[in-house]
Amino acid sequence: MTRGIEWVWADNGDSVPPDDRGLAYGQGVFETMRLEPEGLLLEQYHRERLLHGCHALGIPFHSDGFAQWRAAASQRGLLDAPGAGRFLKLTVTAGSGGRGYRMPPAPRARVITATAPLPQSPLPGEPIRVRGCRQCVQPRVERQGLKTLDRLDQVLASMELASDDFEGLMNDSNGYPLEGTRSNIFVLMGDTLVTPPAERVAVHGTLRRWLGVPLPELGLRLVEGDLTRAIIQKNGLMLGNSVMGLVNATVLDDHPLPVTDDAARLQESVINWLGLA
Amino acid sequence: MTRGIEWVWADNGDSVPPDDRGLAYGQGVFETMRLEPEGLLLEQYHRERLLHGCHALGIPFHSDGFAQWRAAASQRGLLDAPGAGRFLKLTVTAGSGGRGYRMPPAPRARVITATAPLPQSPLPGEPIRVRGCRQCVQPRVERQGLKTLDRLDQVLASMELASDDFEGLMNDSNGYPLEGTRSNIFVLMGDTLVTPPAERVAVHGTLRRWLGVPLPELGLRLVEGDLTRAIIQKNGLMLGNSVMGLVNATVLDDHPLPVTDDAARLQESVINWLGLA
Repeated sequence: MTRGIEWVWADNGDSVPPDDRGLAYGQGVFETMRLEPEGLLLEQYHRERLLHGCHALGIPFHSDGFAQWRAAASQRGLLDAPGAGRFLKLTVTAGSGGRGYRMPPAPRARVITATAPLPQSPLPGEPIRVRGCRQCVQPRVERQGLKTLDRLDQVLASMELASDDFEGLMNDSNGYPLEGTRSNIFVLMGDTLVTPPAERVAVHGTLRRWLGVPLPELGLRLVEGDLTRAIIQKNGLMLGNSVMGLVNATVLDDHPLPVTDDAARLQESVINWLGLA
Repeated sequence: MTRGIEWVWADNGDSVPPDDRGLAYGQGVFETMRLEPEGLLLEQYHRERLLHGCHALGIPFHSDGFAQWRAAASQRGLLDAPGAGRFLKLTVTAGSGGRGYRMPPAPRARVITATAPLPQSPLPGEPIRVRGCRQCVQPRVERQGLKTLDRLDQVLASMELASDDFEGLMNDSNGYPLEGTRSNIFVLMGDTLVTPPAERVAVHGTLRRWLGVPLPELGLRLVEGDLTRAIIQKNGLMLGNSVMGLVNATVLDDHPLPVTDDAARLQESVINWLGLA
């Protein structure tokens, strides 16, 4: 048993003490999960990333803690998706205490649960605009790919977006497109879906991890490789996360992007595989 | 007037909503200030860094907001130092709202004020142990030096410390010692006090900024330059922040460090200049 977890249920009006180490130092991780009638989408992938992140940050929250959370959330009806689906945000911080940056001798995790309506999907035929951002993705040795609470790169990139931009495209410091602010990126070339290397992206997306499993059904394979603006402009750009699925962008910095029949078919297949139709 | 600031007074039992953007994404800055009978130590330096950080992160908190904060804190008696002094932690976040990483159209800053007893100073003659950390300081383009809430490098470095370690020494990725987890570092060589370049350290310390002003009184000058372990082992190591002043380390990774008479005199002078005696 994981003892002494502090539970914060946002739907219940609970709040967080000012000395929370997630707030004070970013010492925490989070998952944003899509809640469907069948349950949490790609739950096992979210769970694994969350627990891996807790381990990396020294937060005492393990699989038994997750099971406790699941039971408590279920009992509160938070895992029931009413009608159109919701998303559920699960944040785990290192809790309170310690001397400055130093951890307390017996840390207790704080688990914050909140739900919200799903963001509105783009209407069919509506342009999916992507904006190239000046803000780069900056490397985080050892915790690269984890969804820790220090997301300033993504916040600052998002400030560059216009209100009708669907997503921002972020480069590494060498100018190679790496990922969106809230999605991983993919380019379909022949029978290969190319995505930047896992060890360089800021977030190892759960959809990105899962996607390799069903792709062979379509005769496709997922491959890691460097992408460039030229490759994207020629072949098109797909954006993926576990809330939206895989979406074909149609405009990059006000220039149209191609959407091939194969890319349209792949987007449709992901919707079907995940039951998002 | 800065309108619509949300005030959180920790001493009053106030708490923070779970959707605070400082908690969610690290979108905030903080200052830890030493409160003396004369007021907040180096207040103008703390104020400048705080406001600069808010500007860099798009948080609507400016000099008039700081003045409001000061008046409100004073009215609550939080600027009165009872007896041995306290420290005051001021955190300003981007508040609540927005769509994910995107800022809300009319953001409101949230200002969190907390006080605590000063950490115990080492007793005279007690060893000041410093531990070299594996965790590096990782660059943050554009917000380098600002005291933003994403302090995971410092938290992870602190996890490497033993309970009797006074401080951890962090390198850049090339192995050059850059700073402590909670202090800037200095090496006194002849009439020169050397400290690593401002554009590479994670935190532009307020003591570090102030120190150049009184140093000429002692015939010394502050110079930026690369430090190495060899330089430190030969000349000694001083740790500085605005809560502790400037402290001579005596042990680095279980090996004794020299403390010259000049270094001891400098430590004493800083204590006197700041009125910490």
